[in-house]
Amino acid sequence: MQIFLGIDPGIADAGYGVIAKTLGGKERCLAYGSIRTDKDQPMELRLLRLRKEFSALLEKYKPNHVAIEKLFFQKNVSTAMAVAEARGVLRLCLAEAGVPCREFSPQDTKIAVCGHGAAEKGQVQRMVCSLLALPEIPKPDDAADALALALALASTVHFMGSVQRQ
Amino acid sequence: MQIFLGIDPGIADAGYGVIAKTLGGKERCLAYGSIRTDKDQPMELRLLRLRKEFSALLEKYKPNHVAIEKLFFQKNVSTAMAVAEARGVLRLCLAEAGVPCREFSPQDTKIAVCGHGAAEKGQVQRMVCSLLALPEIPKPDDAADALALALALASTVHFMGSVQRQ
Repeated sequence: MQIFLGIDPGIADAGYGVIAKTLGGKERCLAYGSIRTDKDQPMELRLLRLRKEFSALLEKYKPNHVAIEKLFFQKNVSTAMAVAEARGVLRLCLAEAGVPCREFSPQDTKIAVCGHGAAEKGQVQRMVCSLLALPEIPKPDDAADALALALALASTVHFMGSVQRQ
Repeated sequence: MQIFLGIDPGIADAGYGVIAKTLGGKERCLAYGSIRTDKDQPMELRLLRLRKEFSALLEKYKPNHVAIEKLFFQKNVSTAMAVAEARGVLRLCLAEAGVPCREFSPQDTKIAVCGHGAAEKGQVQRMVCSLLALPEIPKPDDAADALALALALASTVHFMGSVQRQ
């Protein structure tokens, strides 16, 4: 069994989703949620909290593979910069834990989960719900996005494994 | 005596400048340089190296005050995002060391060091050289920028101190 972690980076809310999968078996959801930091605190302390929570998550689930969403330029540049700073801290935690990390664009994730890159948010969420046999769509949205990333990662890793075995 | 550290954030080169100043005394340069990471290494490992080198710097000089340059949107968005990720790691190190940090725009620095916000790079560098009585302009440019930030920070902190005493 292998553990796959998806991360939707953010500074106010960083979504995470953890799934387990055996080769040829079905994916199973282990955990999902969002690491939140207080917007009234200085940025340095928010980054410190993010680091502590995320390192604890890595310690708890010991993922074999991690995928983090790529950032694209947003209309609000200062928000994009803050998210990138948070993303840097998340990647540092992964390096410290020695876990390999891949980057997925939202389109990569949609293709892997829904079969096409133009899928709408609701469609991706329903697919996550169905693939993991969850009773309802995971909340918040960041957590659902992170589970979609974990699913995309698991299918990519297993697909590459099967190609290498041929 | 107080120690002031200026940081010009970057992922390939992060400039730093350390100065000492006594109240009413002249600024003295203690160290300057650049933390470099290997562009051929994965981003996670570069962030890890940045963290190790920067934490060692904080441990060695134990600054009382730190200034980090603000980031602005650049033409090359992917470079800007990578620099922002590095900046997040630098700020995390500051939080871990418990050192307060201020953000300065390049214009803030120019105003504090040269008296006007439109000063050219060469003018700022000559001013850094003159104020710190250095035998030559510090290299690389990131280090000279970081020393300018440290000087701007020292004058701001001392100015605010003198206002509070009035």
